[in-house]
Amino acid sequence: MERLNEIVLENEVTAASFTAFGAVERAVVGFFVGNGQYSTISCDGPLEVLSCTGNVSLKEGKPSIHAHIALADKDGRAYGGHVMAGCIVSATFEVTVLVYEGIELDSKFDVGTGLFLLDT
Amino acid sequence: MERLNEIVLENEVTAASFTAFGAVERAVVGFFVGNGQYSTISCDGPLEVLSCTGNVSLKEGKPSIHAHIALADKDGRAYGGHVMAGCIVSATFEVTVLVYEGIELDSKFDVGTGLFLLDT
Amino acid sequence: MERLNEIVLENEVTAASFTAFGAVERAVVGFFVGNGQYSTISCDGPLEVLSCTGNVSLKEGKPSIHAHIALADKDGRAYGGHVMAGCIVSATFEVTVLVYEGIELDSKFDVGTGLFLLDT
Repeated sequence: MERLNEIVLENEVTAASFTAFGAVERAVVGFFVGNGQYSTISCDGPLEVLSCTGNVSLKEGKPSIHAHIALADKDGRAYGGHVMAGCIVSATFEVTVLVYEGIELDSKFDVGTGLFLLDT
Repeated sequence: MERLNEIVLENEVTAASFTAFGAVERAVVGFFVGNGQYSTISCDGPLEVLSCTGNVSLKEGKPSIHAHIALADKDGRAYGGHVMAGCIVSATFEVTVLVYEGIELDSKFDVGTGLFLLDT
Repeated sequence: MERLNEIVLENEVTAASFTAFGAVERAVVGFFVGNGQYSTISCDGPLEVLSCTGNVSLKEGKPSIHAHIALADKDGRAYGGHVMAGCIVSATFEVTVLVYEGIELDSKFDVGTGLFLLDT
């Protein structure tokens, strides 16, 4: 996600969506508990990444990534949540990004949830 | 899904695919049991939506949505199935729709399964 | 996957990504254990396919598919992993493939993991 963040910053992306899959050494996922807060769930790996679905929008003028992830452990059991900082990719993480040139997707602060949400 | 249904009806979409993620207050998912029937699983939320993957095709001439969803509870455990009526979005539900203009994707009744399936 | 493999071979696809969902009679998924090896998990169905996320790259000059899958059983519990040979589709499996014409995505052998990985 940090590398993807660098790429969208370098390329001044204003709107994008992406899907990804791969494997991680460790995943940190969040569960939204209201008021802009997430409870944090650390998943020690290795884990397969079944899917990672996200988008890029402008948050206070800067490209910002929002993504959710589904993971599976060595027994195939699946877990997941909101992607938080602290995930560590292992063998591979393969991302397809669709960039929407000429479109500006904005995230604005939403008082009800305490989150920056897509301004639609 | 109802809102997405309105959008595809208003825009006379004849073929599309989409991915989405977000959060729900409640999810109702189905598990196909044959003869056009689904058993219904109600998942009380709040739940994170890890992924929602679907498409839009023409069913008896009208745009129709088919989607499957993966969810996670507060402990990160994942669930999912065929999206049924009764799902309630909470904080956000962010959808990327790829519309295939000039293409008509038809769903036709399939006697073997009792379902409307893509006519390929 | 075999049918998709035929399609990408016939069409000489050199780069693509895809998402899919549907249902399977049986799924065989892998969990990467290092040195190019996967442990194999057989999931007897029927199972709903919540998502299948993958790509097509050239491996030693021939189109090769890599995909991960998320599944749910009759109680809605989710499982998943790396898609292995032996999966059997049941009612439907609906795939959206984005083909990147004029782009060659190569997979090269990576000594560290023992896998063919995207050459980026």
